[in-house]
Amino acid sequence: MVPGSADTDPPPARLSDPDAVIAAVDARLAAFLAEAAAQAARISPAAAELYDPILAFARRGKRIRALALRWGFEAAGGDAARQPGIDDACVAVELLHAAALIHDDIIDESETRRGSPAVHTAFARSHAEHGFSGAPAHFGTAAAIIAGDLCLSLSEQAHARTGLPHAGAPEAVRRHDDLRRDVMLGQFLDIRIQAAPIAAGDIRERAMEVLTYKSAKYSVEQPLLLGAALAGAGPELLAALSAFGLPLGRAFQLRDDELGVFGDPEATGKPAGDDLLQGKRTVLVGMALTRLDAEDAAWLTAHLGDPGIGAADLGRMRELLRASGAVDEHEALISAEEDAAAAALSRLGELGLGDADLAALRAYAGRLTRRAA
Amino acid sequence: MVPGSADTDPPPARLSDPDAVIAAVDARLAAFLAEAAAQAARISPAAAELYDPILAFARRGKRIRALALRWGFEAAGGDAARQPGIDDACVAVELLHAAALIHDDIIDESETRRGSPAVHTAFARSHAEHGFSGAPAHFGTAAAIIAGDLCLSLSEQAHARTGLPHAGAPEAVRRHDDLRRDVMLGQFLDIRIQAAPIAAGDIRERAMEVLTYKSAKYSVEQPLLLGAALAGAGPELLAALSAFGLPLGRAFQLRDDELGVFGDPEATGKPAGDDLLQGKRTVLVGMALTRLDAEDAAWLTAHLGDPGIGAADLGRMRELLRASGAVDEHEALISAEEDAAAAALSRLGELGLGDADLAALRAYAGRLTRRAA
Repeated sequence: MVPGSADTDPPPARLSDPDAVIAAVDARLAAFLAEAAAQAARISPAAAELYDPILAFARRGKRIRALALRWGFEAAGGDAARQPGIDDACVAVELLHAAALIHDDIIDESETRRGSPAVHTAFARSHAEHGFSGAPAHFGTAAAIIAGDLCLSLSEQAHARTGLPHAGAPEAVRRHDDLRRDVMLGQFLDIRIQAAPIAAGDIRERAMEVLTYKSAKYSVEQPLLLGAALAGAGPELLAALSAFGLPLGRAFQLRDDELGVFGDPEATGKPAGDDLLQGKRTVLVGMALTRLDAEDAAWLTAHLGDPGIGAADLGRMRELLRASGAVDEHEALISAEEDAAAAALSRLGELGLGDADLAALRAYAGRLTRRAA
Repeated sequence: MVPGSADTDPPPARLSDPDAVIAAVDARLAAFLAEAAAQAARISPAAAELYDPILAFARRGKRIRALALRWGFEAAGGDAARQPGIDDACVAVELLHAAALIHDDIIDESETRRGSPAVHTAFARSHAEHGFSGAPAHFGTAAAIIAGDLCLSLSEQAHARTGLPHAGAPEAVRRHDDLRRDVMLGQFLDIRIQAAPIAAGDIRERAMEVLTYKSAKYSVEQPLLLGAALAGAGPELLAALSAFGLPLGRAFQLRDDELGVFGDPEATGKPAGDDLLQGKRTVLVGMALTRLDAEDAAWLTAHLGDPGIGAADLGRMRELLRASGAVDEHEALISAEEDAAAAALSRLGELGLGDADLAALRAYAGRLTRRAA
């Protein structure tokens, strides 16, 4: 065998360094929003009051969706150096996510987000500080609805700018459509599962449906697929990315749900046991309710969603989740989803990703599923 | 001069019959939404609960934005028979408008829209009827926020489908961006002018700013320009359409504001004097406050926005608007805007629109400015 021949050389790495991707997306996002805000300020000086909270909000974020999109593009052979428009698509998914969070915080009545006031809270405070008339909370909700709409619209504007040759191709258009539908439909299914009467035995399956659309597909699988479609990926690569992204996205959200019960408030930025206080019907809760005896299940059901619950009862709820075996079952499910994602890597290797790329995807998966916040 | 020569033949009519345009848009809109709803129903049967209110809501509408867009396209030489994708752009502006109204009704706390329950009201009722847990009003708001977001996203999906050769051209992209920004920024300026302290003498100018963006540009000028840009219009035609559309749009909203005070509830579908009950700071109110003596102005200011006001006081408010001369001034302003729009027609004639087209635009202007509902 000839050393250095095409057969033995490892394929060149395709996936860019994640920190470099995030820095590029942050810079593009900041420039895009600054330009939009400056245009609006030429219409009215008051426009700054609408744009400033969006700018502040969009500055933060883990950019996991942008990274998935950029890597999907690169996995399909897209060259970001020659086609920097891909970063506009990355900006678009981050702005879509900001819009979803701004509206989500109204829907969940969350006062804070990542340790800062939620956008509706910030508008309500500004209303009170400026001595505006009417109810501050209503003004805050109204302004945050508009800010979320604007953010959604700015996401579309960013996406329309990519100038990528495949941006108008049916596959890319369909992936973009599906991504948006998944998060909005998932969001609706989520408020519905929290409100509708549902048998304990059905919670697990229904909660899995919610997290599949609202989180797994929207946050991981669809950005990978959209990025790949924007580079003209064929069906084999799309299928392999899906086989990697969907279980990884599920493991990501299942981990999130566990942190919502057992997470350290210092790390998560949310109150201890927040999901229990909110009474969220998660896969974990569904598992516990089918494992507990009738008395404990009734007690847990009665105390879920009681925001005034004391530390002792919160501790007992957590203990029931552990003692029932639900936490172990939940961890086993996370591991199974991680294993499914890992198994899909070999197929991605066959389709041209080298060892460095596969290691990068493995590290990305680890960050999503083995985190503390 | 030779009879029948190119010099003497009137130019062929470009603008399609408005009823035919509206029928085409209605049909395309219904098909588009039915397809989207069917796709979502394959994900979850509960999706129908989210899509059905959008379908019901989008079925109604005067389609003034779709007609402006289609006519802008045709004025620029676009041929809708050969490029039916233009109707996807028409569907997009109607879905954007539906999204704006769904969210607007939450912001304004309006329970009804066009004689039917507002979308958030319908969701709240459905919550109560199905015996869901939690507060029906909060569920209604949450679900309607999501429905509006979905509607906005569906608007973008429809726009991305046009397949028109100029759809990605900078002019068309910019017009589409401006149209969305104008309605969202205008909406924010609107809630701000209602809440912020403002001197009576400043209301007229600030209210004119709000209606220019939230209504005149968004509802008439920008759809005309976007349609024209989608047919590759040059700067002369764009300027002429702007000179027609902007004053017409202002006259349209000024008429709307007058109907909000003096309109017949049977015709408008809103309570008598609705804008006075809501305390809206309109151009009309601004005119009255600068014309009334201090005592009457203080009385009017004190009673604006009092939803529990009786018929006698409502009658006195209307009488003050008339007796102060504000209504006459307002009518004169509407006429001046109408005249400005009419004067722009001659320029459109020079740019190739024939007598039949100009008559159609004149009739469209009349429907927008001389209506009772």
